[in-house]
Amino acid sequence: MNNSLGFVDEENAAMLTDLYELTMCASYFDNRKLDPASFDLFIRKLPPNRSYLLFAGLEQVLRFIERMKFTEEHIRFLKSQGFKEDFLDYFRNFRFTGDVWAVPEGTVVFPNETLIRITAPIIEAQLIETFALNTVNLQTTIATKASRVVYAAKGKPVIEFGLRREHGVDAGMKVARASYIAGCTGTSNVLAGMKYGMPVFGTMAHSFVMFFSNEVDAFRAFTKTFPDKSTLLIDTFDNIKGAENAIVVAKELERKGFKLRGVRLDSGDLVTISKKVRKMLDDNGLSYVPIFASGDLDEYRIEELLKKGAKIDSFGVGTKMGTSADRPYVDIIYKLCEKMNEKGKFQPIMKLSEGKVTFPGRKQVFRLKDANGNFVKDVIALEDEEINGEPLLVKVIERGRVVYDFPSLEEIRKRALENLSMLPEKYKRLRNAAKYPVELSPKLKKLIRDLRLKLKKIEGLGTD
Amino acid sequence: MNNSLGFVDEENAAMLTDLYELTMCASYFDNRKLDPASFDLFIRKLPPNRSYLLFAGLEQVLRFIERMKFTEEHIRFLKSQGFKEDFLDYFRNFRFTGDVWAVPEGTVVFPNETLIRITAPIIEAQLIETFALNTVNLQTTIATKASRVVYAAKGKPVIEFGLRREHGVDAGMKVARASYIAGCTGTSNVLAGMKYGMPVFGTMAHSFVMFFSNEVDAFRAFTKTFPDKSTLLIDTFDNIKGAENAIVVAKELERKGFKLRGVRLDSGDLVTISKKVRKMLDDNGLSYVPIFASGDLDEYRIEELLKKGAKIDSFGVGTKMGTSADRPYVDIIYKLCEKMNEKGKFQPIMKLSEGKVTFPGRKQVFRLKDANGNFVKDVIALEDEEINGEPLLVKVIERGRVVYDFPSLEEIRKRALENLSMLPEKYKRLRNAAKYPVELSPKLKKLIRDLRLKLKKIEGLGTD
Repeated sequence: MNNSLGFVDEENAAMLTDLYELTMCASYFDNRKLDPASFDLFIRKLPPNRSYLLFAGLEQVLRFIERMKFTEEHIRFLKSQGFKEDFLDYFRNFRFTGDVWAVPEGTVVFPNETLIRITAPIIEAQLIETFALNTVNLQTTIATKASRVVYAAKGKPVIEFGLRREHGVDAGMKVARASYIAGCTGTSNVLAGMKYGMPVFGTMAHSFVMFFSNEVDAFRAFTKTFPDKSTLLIDTFDNIKGAENAIVVAKELERKGFKLRGVRLDSGDLVTISKKVRKMLDDNGLSYVPIFASGDLDEYRIEELLKKGAKIDSFGVGTKMGTSADRPYVDIIYKLCEKMNEKGKFQPIMKLSEGKVTFPGRKQVFRLKDANGNFVKDVIALEDEEINGEPLLVKVIERGRVVYDFPSLEEIRKRALENLSMLPEKYKRLRNAAKYPVELSPKLKKLIRDLRLKLKKIEGLGTD
Repeated sequence: MNNSLGFVDEENAAMLTDLYELTMCASYFDNRKLDPASFDLFIRKLPPNRSYLLFAGLEQVLRFIERMKFTEEHIRFLKSQGFKEDFLDYFRNFRFTGDVWAVPEGTVVFPNETLIRITAPIIEAQLIETFALNTVNLQTTIATKASRVVYAAKGKPVIEFGLRREHGVDAGMKVARASYIAGCTGTSNVLAGMKYGMPVFGTMAHSFVMFFSNEVDAFRAFTKTFPDKSTLLIDTFDNIKGAENAIVVAKELERKGFKLRGVRLDSGDLVTISKKVRKMLDDNGLSYVPIFASGDLDEYRIEELLKKGAKIDSFGVGTKMGTSADRPYVDIIYKLCEKMNEKGKFQPIMKLSEGKVTFPGRKQVFRLKDANGNFVKDVIALEDEEINGEPLLVKVIERGRVVYDFPSLEEIRKRALENLSMLPEKYKRLRNAAKYPVELSPKLKKLIRDLRLKLKKIEGLGTD
């Protein structure tokens, strides 16, 4: 790796793929199977306790599709792996020429709903698979998890704090992005602040307090540097003594015309301690000083804390949200749904293997709403069906060119918050939520029935 | 993000940090607290079911420390966030000047053992925290998980297949690296093959089979392209019919002088199916064709399959290993263990908060072995103690310069496999393994006792 940190260079994105994508493409090329096909990217089932998914990651997938290419270094490496010259020549001039439809980021979606649909010559469609899955898996997993944490916090700000235990540097960035889309107020990740323009938050570590000869000196030193935006970590030795010291320093700040921005609790029984600290602050005329809590939090813990009356004003949530620790992935897949037959006509395709059935044909997802805009149910239909609901998939790439006006991160976040607010409460409970109804349209049902019969017949015929 | 894929540029590594690292540094700078200190990076406790940790990620941490710097773009952004000019001037010329000791990658380690120790002016030591934790957390989490998968496979090759559901592009690379260190035979990730020189493996997807008019045509097309290295996926329609078709094609290959490289099972009851398929292959003179299995595997499932006599020769393991799904992180932390006092003398430091005790002073970890080299126990001691065992920490950076001869990936892997082979069986069981003994040295115990008394006294005195 020549001394490097081993970060992935954008120029190498096309190679960030499973070898089988390339071997399949080589064989398609070798066998002159270059016809177009359509693939659906979707999530097969909900992760445990989740009752919906918050879709994120589309922007990076589209940018990848638009720009993916193979460099001479890639070609040389693939040659060393046994790929043939004529196929590699094709790679030299590779450019995606197909069409892509997708659900906008920040949309609440459900299992089996097409999230991205790609129609392109088979090799082009195949080459997108690994990167698209990787990108949507991470961001949708995290956006879904983070939306639950934000829901549990009932309007109190949640800051994403997990960089140190997220999975590498790209995850550090994409988790910040996805959490922000899902309603987090900001992140601790400085680079995410710089690159995405999202708010960045930080306080202090225990080591800062320990580096001074005593706690109050540490607090004084910190507030000297940040008189108008210090949040003091008060649990290094003892939360209550820490609160006393914070009060001393808050009063000193007041005399200089400043206000302490907050105190932070990071350990112990947060319910009891936050109540005590709140009272201490209030008794000293510091009711304006909010209490910020962190330490092993997730949606379950936050819900419990608030239920028990913890006096916490905002939350720093790290590892468990940043890795989606109780289920660090979604069952995301990318499946062939139609191919062109010998007569040049598109023909719907369906897979029947055990527990892995897929839906055939080019589909659209329709969302039915009540008079107030609340989500009532979704219908998965064939693309050309007329269903009385909002179609979720929009055209984003046409003949290889992005025709989508990329929303800003703020716009995506706004869409997510609106979508979540239109999803009725019973579908949002952290545990045992109701099952949101997703139906298949009459035409799609009929197509599935017909194909099932046909497949059974073919199976009966054996292997040729 | 100007159209980019949002990958992290190595030039921006220094900014991939929690804001509090920078605010603390600004305050240290502002208060002229520039003295040196030492920090320990270590893991507080074992993840569930794990009985040891396989340390990985050091190389990237050291390269980061050696090269981290702030660019004018960073400075501008930090200025916009309210950091003061004189501090930012210091950042302009930032260079790490401290010393680092570390355990070599591929070493089996245990909770509370110092893995990396940094001694540097406080600001320099602080700035390393987030990146070091992020890097070691991911790679150690995955190396540990992967070593368990490899152990369960009992010598049968394990290929890392998880790129599509690993957390972003950096995780895709680092998981391939860490899994290889832990004993996996290779990866499906093409870029990891190109960058790390590790073996890359791939077969075919269900869509390939479905894109042809029937399965046997798909198999013929694939083996035409790769006559000497085709592994045929036989479960698209039905495993048994798929095996029949694979046999047809294997026989055709034989007539052309080639050998089928394998068949792959990806669904269904792998025990029963693998036995049937093995018999079919053997009955047709194809006992040389190995069976490769994939599909939702991890160490528990592999152990169960082999116990039940599944006839599987190698495994493709994806999501559950690539995300360490049952525990996607380790409790990794970075703690102050000594600081320089007013008299210019280093003074050991210790934290006492609830459940978060740390060990004071500069430490060394000694490993005691029996006559055959088997690990017997570890002793955490003070650096200058004489303990009759192998010291695990070696000097890797001296006054800011790497003085460590970076081992190659193959050498790291070799160390890991040797370490794992020297760890007695009882400590390697997948569940309910014995607890490996890690002791504190007499001097370290005494230091902890003394500091505990002193801290109690200080606490008694209140806040100054």
